[in-house]
Amino acid sequence: MKVKVLTLFPQMFSPMNESLMKTAQEKGILEFSTYDFRDFAINKHGHVDDYPYGGGAGMLLRPEPIVECLESLSLNDKTPIILVDPIGKPFTQSMAQEWATKEELVFICGHYEGFDERIRSYVTEEVSLGDYVLTNGELPTMVMIDATVRLIPEVVGNAESIVSESFQDHLLEYPQYTRPQNFRGQEVPDVLLSGHHERIDQWRKKESFKRTAKRRPDILTNRSLSIEEEQWLEEFNNSTQI
Amino acid sequence: MKVKVLTLFPQMFSPMNESLMKTAQEKGILEFSTYDFRDFAINKHGHVDDYPYGGGAGMLLRPEPIVECLESLSLNDKTPIILVDPIGKPFTQSMAQEWATKEELVFICGHYEGFDERIRSYVTEEVSLGDYVLTNGELPTMVMIDATVRLIPEVVGNAESIVSESFQDHLLEYPQYTRPQNFRGQEVPDVLLSGHHERIDQWRKKESFKRTAKRRPDILTNRSLSIEEEQWLEEFNNSTQI
Repeated sequence: MKVKVLTLFPQMFSPMNESLMKTAQEKGILEFSTYDFRDFAINKHGHVDDYPYGGGAGMLLRPEPIVECLESLSLNDKTPIILVDPIGKPFTQSMAQEWATKEELVFICGHYEGFDERIRSYVTEEVSLGDYVLTNGELPTMVMIDATVRLIPEVVGNAESIVSESFQDHLLEYPQYTRPQNFRGQEVPDVLLSGHHERIDQWRKKESFKRTAKRRPDILTNRSLSIEEEQWLEEFNNSTQI
Repeated sequence: MKVKVLTLFPQMFSPMNESLMKTAQEKGILEFSTYDFRDFAINKHGHVDDYPYGGGAGMLLRPEPIVECLESLSLNDKTPIILVDPIGKPFTQSMAQEWATKEELVFICGHYEGFDERIRSYVTEEVSLGDYVLTNGELPTMVMIDATVRLIPEVVGNAESIVSESFQDHLLEYPQYTRPQNFRGQEVPDVLLSGHHERIDQWRKKESFKRTAKRRPDILTNRSLSIEEEQWLEEFNNSTQI
């Protein structure tokens, strides 16, 4: 997959050369590049922004540098062009799954003061990382790339470790334990030491469900429950009432 | 504000030396440091993880390196210790506002394979960036730091530009325009060229509301509407029906 990022801060993308994103590039699965749209500045002083019409604080990114930079990439019609912006659709795991099937993705990093409205007509998607205010689009873009690229087959070595992760199956992950068996008085639950795989699986399923019911009841409302889960929910509700 | 991050990838934090976070450090408002908990590895080979009890894919972070690294910081009782983890509370702007009032914040970056459950008893908050799966906690930690630090007075120069930003006032931002007045046939709306401040303000309020109603109706359901906004909503609903 080719991932191309339009940014005024190309040096902020060094985390893309670490950890799993580094591996993805070394394996030849990810081809990552940044494009500094200041190269398409409107004058020789490198200006890319200007005052807002109608007044107001701050400067706005002008449309020409971003649009000309996009055009220089000679993209084909199928490439999603993603504007990272707080008014976009909130980013979700299913967007990452959709993007992970693409040959090429382009991200445009917004700027905290905002940008000219007309830039929107040159993008195919507008996406926000979440309902919080950030300085610019670089960090959220890296988060979205990480979430997407790790879903491409062969990026994460062990397929099973993706499947058991939170959100992939719409429940929060069950509690996990490793050595030491006793850490400062806190013991690993007996069932995990039993060697009884069926009981362990059942315990994990129930803990995962219980945790979701307790911490994120909103996740359960968007999901149909099995008969077993209905029983667990009743059980937890009764124990909470006592 | 002191921000301390426990991580296995300290080099991933170079974006903290760019843009606004750089400014915050130069102004002496932000004191940022990373702590590699591999320095507290359980053996001379630098091991910090081990196999999960009860079986399963992947390795888990053991409790000792993280807990001993935390203890080495001699934190006071008031410092929030934030575990960045997919099963935590979803991060919001109001968390950032709360954290922005603290003298010190500690973040612990999780690892995509997971960590020993008992680490949770040493933290004060568990926070997730959103409902998507990421490789590790480093990128989400930087996002949370950025959202928080920029709310500290004097970090962003112009106070007004914070106030008008999305989510701060619970509506999406209105469309903004800068030069050129005509960009490839797309014109700046007349009202913004009128010089009539009251009309401009009114147009912006209405556009902001309209955009929120169209793109993020969920935001409006958590908010009481003014009489004017009720009228706008009716107007939009009628125009959509035609």
